[in-house]
Amino acid sequence: MDELKKACLDIKSLKIQGATNVAKYAVKTLKDFAYRHKELQFDELWNKIEEGIDLIYDSRDTEPAMRNGLEFIHRKLKLTHEEEGKSIDIAEEVGKYSERYLQLLMESKTKIAKIGANRIPNKGDPQDFTIFTHCHSSSVTGILLEAWRQKKRFNVICTETRPKYQGRITAKELIDEGIPTKMVVDSAMRWAVRTHDIKMIITGADAITSEGTVLNKIGSRLLALVCREMHIPYYVATPLLKFNPDTAFGILEKIDMRSWKEVWPEKPKPLNILNPAFETVSRRYIDGLITEAGIFPATIVFDMFYHTYPFYKNKK
Amino acid sequence: MDELKKACLDIKSLKIQGATNVAKYAVKTLKDFAYRHKELQFDELWNKIEEGIDLIYDSRDTEPAMRNGLEFIHRKLKLTHEEEGKSIDIAEEVGKYSERYLQLLMESKTKIAKIGANRIPNKGDPQDFTIFTHCHSSSVTGILLEAWRQKKRFNVICTETRPKYQGRITAKELIDEGIPTKMVVDSAMRWAVRTHDIKMIITGADAITSEGTVLNKIGSRLLALVCREMHIPYYVATPLLKFNPDTAFGILEKIDMRSWKEVWPEKPKPLNILNPAFETVSRRYIDGLITEAGIFPATIVFDMFYHTYPFYKNKK
Amino acid sequence: MDELKKACLDIKSLKIQGATNVAKYAVKTLKDFAYRHKELQFDELWNKIEEGIDLIYDSRDTEPAMRNGLEFIHRKLKLTHEEEGKSIDIAEEVGKYSERYLQLLMESKTKIAKIGANRIPNKGDPQDFTIFTHCHSSSVTGILLEAWRQKKRFNVICTETRPKYQGRITAKELIDEGIPTKMVVDSAMRWAVRTHDIKMIITGADAITSEGTVLNKIGSRLLALVCREMHIPYYVATPLLKFNPDTAFGILEKIDMRSWKEVWPEKPKPLNILNPAFETVSRRYIDGLITEAGIFPATIVFDMFYHTYPFYKNKK
Amino acid sequence: MDELKKACLDIKSLKIQGATNVAKYAVKTLKDFAYRHKELQFDELWNKIEEGIDLIYDSRDTEPAMRNGLEFIHRKLKLTHEEEGKSIDIAEEVGKYSERYLQLLMESKTKIAKIGANRIPNKGDPQDFTIFTHCHSSSVTGILLEAWRQKKRFNVICTETRPKYQGRITAKELIDEGIPTKMVVDSAMRWAVRTHDIKMIITGADAITSEGTVLNKIGSRLLALVCREMHIPYYVATPLLKFNPDTAFGILEKIDMRSWKEVWPEKPKPLNILNPAFETVSRRYIDGLITEAGIFPATIVFDMFYHTYPFYKNKK
Amino acid sequence: MDELKKACLDIKSLKIQGATNVAKYAVKTLKDFAYRHKELQFDELWNKIEEGIDLIYDSRDTEPAMRNGLEFIHRKLKLTHEEEGKSIDIAEEVGKYSERYLQLLMESKTKIAKIGANRIPNKGDPQDFTIFTHCHSSSVTGILLEAWRQKKRFNVICTETRPKYQGRITAKELIDEGIPTKMVVDSAMRWAVRTHDIKMIITGADAITSEGTVLNKIGSRLLALVCREMHIPYYVATPLLKFNPDTAFGILEKIDMRSWKEVWPEKPKPLNILNPAFETVSRRYIDGLITEAGIFPATIVFDMFYHTYPFYKNKK
Amino acid sequence: MDELKKACLDIKSLKIQGATNVAKYAVKTLKDFAYRHKELQFDELWNKIEEGIDLIYDSRDTEPAMRNGLEFIHRKLKLTHEEEGKSIDIAEEVGKYSERYLQLLMESKTKIAKIGANRIPNKGDPQDFTIFTHCHSSSVTGILLEAWRQKKRFNVICTETRPKYQGRITAKELIDEGIPTKMVVDSAMRWAVRTHDIKMIITGADAITSEGTVLNKIGSRLLALVCREMHIPYYVATPLLKFNPDTAFGILEKIDMRSWKEVWPEKPKPLNILNPAFETVSRRYIDGLITEAGIFPATIVFDMFYHTYPFYKNKK
Repeated sequence: MDELKKACLDIKSLKIQGATNVAKYAVKTLKDFAYRHKELQFDELWNKIEEGIDLIYDSRDTEPAMRNGLEFIHRKLKLTHEEEGKSIDIAEEVGKYSERYLQLLMESKTKIAKIGANRIPNKGDPQDFTIFTHCHSSSVTGILLEAWRQKKRFNVICTETRPKYQGRITAKELIDEGIPTKMVVDSAMRWAVRTHDIKMIITGADAITSEGTVLNKIGSRLLALVCREMHIPYYVATPLLKFNPDTAFGILEKIDMRSWKEVWPEKPKPLNILNPAFETVSRRYIDGLITEAGIFPATIVFDMFYHTYPFYKNKK
Repeated sequence: MDELKKACLDIKSLKIQGATNVAKYAVKTLKDFAYRHKELQFDELWNKIEEGIDLIYDSRDTEPAMRNGLEFIHRKLKLTHEEEGKSIDIAEEVGKYSERYLQLLMESKTKIAKIGANRIPNKGDPQDFTIFTHCHSSSVTGILLEAWRQKKRFNVICTETRPKYQGRITAKELIDEGIPTKMVVDSAMRWAVRTHDIKMIITGADAITSEGTVLNKIGSRLLALVCREMHIPYYVATPLLKFNPDTAFGILEKIDMRSWKEVWPEKPKPLNILNPAFETVSRRYIDGLITEAGIFPATIVFDMFYHTYPFYKNKK
Repeated sequence: MDELKKACLDIKSLKIQGATNVAKYAVKTLKDFAYRHKELQFDELWNKIEEGIDLIYDSRDTEPAMRNGLEFIHRKLKLTHEEEGKSIDIAEEVGKYSERYLQLLMESKTKIAKIGANRIPNKGDPQDFTIFTHCHSSSVTGILLEAWRQKKRFNVICTETRPKYQGRITAKELIDEGIPTKMVVDSAMRWAVRTHDIKMIITGADAITSEGTVLNKIGSRLLALVCREMHIPYYVATPLLKFNPDTAFGILEKIDMRSWKEVWPEKPKPLNILNPAFETVSRRYIDGLITEAGIFPATIVFDMFYHTYPFYKNKK
Repeated sequence: MDELKKACLDIKSLKIQGATNVAKYAVKTLKDFAYRHKELQFDELWNKIEEGIDLIYDSRDTEPAMRNGLEFIHRKLKLTHEEEGKSIDIAEEVGKYSERYLQLLMESKTKIAKIGANRIPNKGDPQDFTIFTHCHSSSVTGILLEAWRQKKRFNVICTETRPKYQGRITAKELIDEGIPTKMVVDSAMRWAVRTHDIKMIITGADAITSEGTVLNKIGSRLLALVCREMHIPYYVATPLLKFNPDTAFGILEKIDMRSWKEVWPEKPKPLNILNPAFETVSRRYIDGLITEAGIFPATIVFDMFYHTYPFYKNKK
Repeated sequence: MDELKKACLDIKSLKIQGATNVAKYAVKTLKDFAYRHKELQFDELWNKIEEGIDLIYDSRDTEPAMRNGLEFIHRKLKLTHEEEGKSIDIAEEVGKYSERYLQLLMESKTKIAKIGANRIPNKGDPQDFTIFTHCHSSSVTGILLEAWRQKKRFNVICTETRPKYQGRITAKELIDEGIPTKMVVDSAMRWAVRTHDIKMIITGADAITSEGTVLNKIGSRLLALVCREMHIPYYVATPLLKFNPDTAFGILEKIDMRSWKEVWPEKPKPLNILNPAFETVSRRYIDGLITEAGIFPATIVFDMFYHTYPFYKNKK
Repeated sequence: MDELKKACLDIKSLKIQGATNVAKYAVKTLKDFAYRHKELQFDELWNKIEEGIDLIYDSRDTEPAMRNGLEFIHRKLKLTHEEEGKSIDIAEEVGKYSERYLQLLMESKTKIAKIGANRIPNKGDPQDFTIFTHCHSSSVTGILLEAWRQKKRFNVICTETRPKYQGRITAKELIDEGIPTKMVVDSAMRWAVRTHDIKMIITGADAITSEGTVLNKIGSRLLALVCREMHIPYYVATPLLKFNPDTAFGILEKIDMRSWKEVWPEKPKPLNILNPAFETVSRRYIDGLITEAGIFPATIVFDMFYHTYPFYKNKK
């Protein structure tokens, strides 16, 4: 149990970053844990696994891709058990479903890149189509790189994304592939959108709620306001597996507050620095979610999640 | 002439910063220039002064407080000349009107502090009234410090203001006087306004146009959008002397583009960084200008400028 | 038949008030009617029941919770009949399905209270979270009382709700449980929301249409406008059983006009008093419906109704 | 002095109601006070009058029509004194200027009625032009009655205006002259405007600020929101003499909070009733002020006040 | 193959007009093609049919009603083949499913007329209910004529719809049935809506996307803006069969640019005339789609399409 | 008098078109009339002139440029008479002031062209700056032609402007000077603005009111809605002499309804064609008036008119 607890601590302490990485790490942790205890008799191992799932589940306030992974494995395990009784090899089953979930997650990324790239038209001149993005999202860069590979030509403007400068990661990834890229400070987002004839804005997501609200990097809601003001389409590229089913039952997503040290390490002592990691974007500001199940309004995400992943139905 | 040209270069090269400082420096440069050539005969000196005024005037694309100063001195000089002929001592007159203009500018600051402080109510608990500001403006901190001196209690949230972190100057000035102050990154401005029950937003101005448009630090228009979304009053504290009369004749304010080095000195070579210093805020987003002539809608600034400073009438 | 007609008259004349009470009364009326004629032979009783259902159905212009109840009983009856032929005891079946419907309705209330209470965060100090409501709705007070029982601390502002002062009922229910409550006149709703840092608005519903429009107490749409202006989340707590399936086929909800005597009994004779009971709130103004099936956008109510209550499918 | 103080108490205690009535009462109080002390020698009487003006001035938090009256008399008195020295009869002068101010105020009402009536077109059928109003304002009914007298035909909808039902006064005044009138409860204002093809909304004002903000009966800002949503012109009929010059110097209008007894005399003890008398309407929501100086945007009221009443210039 | 190619050319060249006519023509073309080659052996004919479907499919950039028809026939054919092997008579089957699809399309029109007519209330006087429409749509006139047949009384305002004056077709159809009709030039649409107390706006659709966006005649989005400004309900009457499933996978609808000759045949040579046939209307501006499956928000069209026509599921 | 009446009829019957042409014609008519009766004795001629002014004044419902011209002549005449008594030669004076007014009007056009041209930046490539206009206005084409003469490079999109196709006149004037020009049908205005990165919209004006409302060609308010939606600056180029002082006193501008024959000469008999010539644009939608007195918000037009033309003060 100790190694599992240590792994949970790694997750809790933000050592592992990015929703997909956390999900991978969590699922692998569970698999390793199951194999380590492979020799235990059925009932004992079963209980241990359920306990382990709960521990990992609670290691972060919100992390839907991870939680949906654990839920997936748990449900599949119970189903197999119901059908085949105690003859099953629990560790093998955990291993199998862990793999399957990761595969689902990876496939969703590939589909999103394809579907999103379809939405980008092919103008001969890269200057004739400008896309704006904020922060760094592998779903977003996946789309942009896929479109570029398809020989579509466009240019990108990104923000620097204080305090951690994730915009620089985005810029580097695009620049490395030869995509013409511009950068502005965060507070210039309205100016950039106003003056550069932006055709499309895409960001990623950290979580999605049953109301169609998207949780994403601080500044996303501000950017949404700019999009709405200028009537520019705002797309959110994200696996549906980031949908948080608990929100349907009234549970609110938590907003992580990070350390002031990220913002101003030498700040005067009495100064209070507020450093929220995320903010929420209402469905009203989102033109479409680009997901593995297609492009659709965020408003219907509750429906689409259960259509796409019917094994999650009847939760609670 | 060489020293004058050197001074003009200092202004051009942004060595001198802040509208008030530039105005002071320009006026002093003219005065010194006049005294240096005090011994010249009337006509020669007169021409030299007019030439000097033109040179300084053109040393920056836009700098209304400086230009209005030069215009003030020039007009007063011509008037005195018309009334008193060639008997006047040009250098003395230039000196006198230089002083008078600087006095006007300084008095406007004091009045603004008083009038603005009146707009802040006195709540016993500093947490009961929160003011938001962006960047650094001496007119704004003047108001806040004056109100605090009057024992009014409130708290302030400011942005860090990338890329030059002028928000840190604001924070220090306020913290030093004991005003409870919080700071957020620029992209958290909507989040901060949404979650902290802001009662009032104040920023400064770099220039004002005949349409009532305010030119101010990049991010100001973005902030204005947030204010409008949340229906929070947005005040701009500024001397009327920053009004640019040329705008009435169709001349647009120039938007200064600064070096990418301010944003990311180690940027990848192909990355293009756009670093605009200012953006414009339409009168529609401004609840009131706080000026030496009182608080009024930005819409009537054209009228108010000529009522307050009638000697500028009939320009062009 | 006469007693049934009398009961219909009671419903028509507004003697029975509140959607849930009307549904209960109607269902009970049908049950009693069935038992009274228990001795009739199958065909005769069958026809009588269908006739009775029609009569009660038409006793009010709109009353979805009641109509869905009658429809539920009718459909279940027909299904049983199809499966088991004439061997069934019609009166018993009517009785059984009447009970089942009322149970559904009651369970929906309990679920709504739980789910809605989850949406209220637990701040230590009741003054740190303010909820606004209008009129009286048992779904809304159900949520508030449940949250309070869970030791969540908050305060409530309600309107008086002219002309019948149902806001006073709301205030009393909350005050009795110790929830700190404030009241304002109806026209002060914008003032109250503007000045009291409201975090959430909840009202009930009288009916819901296939477009996601909610019919509720006069003043609800006005309140929705205020919410939108201030970007405060507007929730509608309501059983999905108030969905009116006829609206999908173009039938409009009727707006009840009540007597002027409720407003000003001593009015001058020529004065014309307009006293509408309800108004409609478009889905655009509603952040979420809080229902027995979870919280979701009003936009998808058409889908959610048939997912939750699949036995209503294929109507018409 | 005692009678003067008693009169001030009458003003303070809201015994005198309505901005015009308060102004009349205040001015008459000063006049009587002056005549009572007519026999005093110049310097003594002068000081007494100034003291009296201050006392009356401070008897209410805000009451611009009264304060502008006192200011008018004081300024005229000082001017006469400067021109004619101590030979003037102070009491006579106070009397003369008191009369002149009241005359100004009354003339403004007549002009407003004429100008406002011009804005109402003459449709043959009263049902073809519907005007909406809230609360009671003599400037508004003045316009409506004048237009009706000019044989213009229209109809009016008014709210009841809780808690004091001033809408009933409006309704009676109009009904008595034969103007077709409808009434709704306050919360039905959006419904009424939405469904009755309103062509124009007019309310009165209690005070006007240098930013063009109008202070008026609670519900006025709510109504403004409705007007804006439906793009119906919102006019405010008011003497310019209700302009409060202090607001230019940052002084905020106070919002009067009235007793809970007006709202619910039998309220449960722990219930907290908030009963604000007024709310503020931003210039953005007002299409035009209808004043004695013509119809113009509220935005330019600061200018218009000094153009119309130049003797108020250079205050402070 | 040649006749098929010729038919495709007819479709391509816009010789066939109107989504329904194109669908009919395409389906008939396929049927005729199948019958012409009836004598071929199974495999050969099967390949020919699939090739033919592809050819017709690609004859226009976008034409969902046609494409959904071809897809329908193809899927049904494959299903029958899977179930019954090579014993089936391909030509007969193509014929059968062609008929069935056209029947679906025709039935959808009838249902839309009925459902839409339900949404129009019956006012005695035609002047008491005004409906606004733009261009010509048989779904829209279907609803209006059906409602009129049901003795509902209302009047209609339509635009002339430059450059092809399709509004005149609408006007004639309505006038011929005796429906009181008014016409305005296109640029008077806001004026007409503002001054004529419009209760409802209905237009047709050329295509619908997975985001709920409607493609329709140029001017439709402009009209939507007017509706939103005045808060008038905007309905789109359209068969669900105009839903384009490809849009879910990121494919954008193409906007057809027509010849300048339609606009100004004698134009000066250097003048560039832009003549777009369609524009897109976001779901945000649409109150409801009136379809064969009922009235619902455009937002849920993706769901509704697959519920109503489940045989289209799992495309791609 | 007969010739004068005939001239009035010419004005009334729309034989004379365009505000400037009408003003010229009216003023010339008065001058000729005065010269024809030059020989009359003073009092008789005086009365005749005043009668003539009244007749011409009333020849059209609204035509501020003409009416301000007559008012100008009348006021100047009275002033001269007051100063010089009956010694003046009335006909000569009428002639002199007629000339002076026309000169004022012509000078205003030149100034507007200069000031407006200053607002257009000089981009090297005409495709880098796109201006949109509607209908035909000589003030607008004056600005565009002046800017082009100054070697500024830009391109223009104009509407065709049904029913009289004045957009074709605009297009021809611009094309003739080599300005790259595009045209769209009126209903494509939103599409054109959305897709062509418009930087500025300019139209003319037929009249301006004291509220800052502009009366202009039908479609102007619709265009204003588009500008506001896309936050594109909307300028109105117009002589201040089109300000209508009567509007300050509540008189509304009349909206001219033209013949249906302009729209559809072969219309079916029962079809009712509404053909309004103008619509009103609220100051809220106008970024700036470009006038002979500079560029300023429409809101302050009341002030600016009297500052610029002080001889119109104290009307009524």
